[in-house]
Amino acid sequence: MSKELVFGHQSPDTDAIVAAIAFADFEKQLGKEFEPVALGEPNDETKFVFDHFGASVPRVIKTAANEVEAVALVDHNEAQQSVSDIADVKVTHVVDHHRIANFQTSNPLFYRAEPVGCTSTIITKLYHEYELEIPKQIAGLMLSAIISDTLLLKSPTTTADDEAAVKELATIAGEDYAAYGKEMLRAGTNVDSKTAAALIDADAKSFTMGGKSVRVAQVNTVDVNDVFKRQDEFETAIKAENKAEGYDLFVLMVTNILDSDSEGLIIGDPTTPVETAFAGKLANNRIALPGVVSRKKQVVPPLTDAFNA
Amino acid sequence: MSKELVFGHQSPDTDAIVAAIAFADFEKQLGKEFEPVALGEPNDETKFVFDHFGASVPRVIKTAANEVEAVALVDHNEAQQSVSDIADVKVTHVVDHHRIANFQTSNPLFYRAEPVGCTSTIITKLYHEYELEIPKQIAGLMLSAIISDTLLLKSPTTTADDEAAVKELATIAGEDYAAYGKEMLRAGTNVDSKTAAALIDADAKSFTMGGKSVRVAQVNTVDVNDVFKRQDEFETAIKAENKAEGYDLFVLMVTNILDSDSEGLIIGDPTTPVETAFAGKLANNRIALPGVVSRKKQVVPPLTDAFNA
Repeated sequence: MSKELVFGHQSPDTDAIVAAIAFADFEKQLGKEFEPVALGEPNDETKFVFDHFGASVPRVIKTAANEVEAVALVDHNEAQQSVSDIADVKVTHVVDHHRIANFQTSNPLFYRAEPVGCTSTIITKLYHEYELEIPKQIAGLMLSAIISDTLLLKSPTTTADDEAAVKELATIAGEDYAAYGKEMLRAGTNVDSKTAAALIDADAKSFTMGGKSVRVAQVNTVDVNDVFKRQDEFETAIKAENKAEGYDLFVLMVTNILDSDSEGLIIGDPTTPVETAFAGKLANNRIALPGVVSRKKQVVPPLTDAFNA
Repeated sequence: MSKELVFGHQSPDTDAIVAAIAFADFEKQLGKEFEPVALGEPNDETKFVFDHFGASVPRVIKTAANEVEAVALVDHNEAQQSVSDIADVKVTHVVDHHRIANFQTSNPLFYRAEPVGCTSTIITKLYHEYELEIPKQIAGLMLSAIISDTLLLKSPTTTADDEAAVKELATIAGEDYAAYGKEMLRAGTNVDSKTAAALIDADAKSFTMGGKSVRVAQVNTVDVNDVFKRQDEFETAIKAENKAEGYDLFVLMVTNILDSDSEGLIIGDPTTPVETAFAGKLANNRIALPGVVSRKKQVVPPLTDAFNA
């Protein structure tokens, strides 16, 4: 078998980059050659994680078909979140924890999805199922990915499997996960030093809902006013992005990771499905999202349902 | 959690029915309530299997949403192969060994696919991963499903995992798998006693390829002349079915399970992709398919590629 590339989604978060590295190691231990790559530069949190564990971030690719015939996807499956030429390569493996949509293959493949908080939790289970050892550095990276995706096991996406994986990986990596986790999350919430244009693109995914192109971005902070004191700047940046990329609707989740609450900034059309999905009214383009921290579990499903209603 | 239904594809073969029973038992051992049902009556081979192991065949359903809110799919994922009202229920689990197409969800789910010869092989692995015991009767049923899907481990879809599962399940079930397997396969090739209309519908699946509706059916036999001596009757039945169901193209694979060869009977339009896919020419609506026994691995991928070329 010739080499394959393995990568997470565009605008990568910590799990998207870490899961590619871990899955490549898992397959290497099974005798296969997968090179982990990324579809974008690491964010501040991911940089903190790689510095902390002395690991190297993977190189960034724009296309895959110029290098390989086949690829593995981690932490995503929807084509619009993947490499630009995904249609020109064969997908042999997917490991993911999201819904399945806009994804199809001609051939049978290895597809492993579970409704858990993080792809790295599933990869931890894969190491166990095949009785392979988790290297110490990769344990530290996967620990960080699970803390990132579950907001230190507080997100409603968190399952017993995520908790078990965090405890086991912390032991292998030699970390106090609670103390390390808080430090890591804080490192990822550096809002003041960045432009609105950069922040709305740092953790953003595109969806097709009811025939409309919907962009859902998330900014984590310890105070939502860090964003809303600059609301005009954010609105200008979002309008420019909607126009440039053809998004009908932009939903920016501004999430207080300490309180586990969000407030939404909503720009575009139609906004009625947003009000329906979250049983509220827009005021000054904003809507309260109490208790909402998970795009995947608390925003995309009700919004999809509201668009299709 | 309220009860869910679990079922295999329409026109069920042995694996479609057995995998539903096995997955329901697996989930029951984990404390969940899944009722195995079927989307059609068992074929002759499946009846032989259930008689042999003294098992009861599941009831047949036409719709799911009138009974449950959520379902699990085994041995298929494509909507057109599933229950008629699949769009009205939530899919929580899929265990399958086919390509993924025409399948999407709003929510994260448990999806387990591997490119192995049989869904029952994957369920055998699941029992092991969760350290659960495989009941003797279910071991016999899953053994039969793997023998059926892999034509006694001779199909090119067969993997080392299928071989290992067959040996282990045969031990649990107390069967000589080679002797039992030949007897079982022979029981499923009863061509002379059936109408062409029944035979072309007994193991058939629908696909969308290049915007066309393509039906691919398979008849197993120990002599392809069992079918072609009645070619006129088959052509009439296929033309009637194409018209009634709106299929553009019907591909009937007539497979000699002893020689591991097939011959195709092709009715409809366009036929050029068939000639491209199998590098041959149609004569008298027939095309030689030497070495071809697997619809999933040897017919659907090249035909899909030819339609999309």
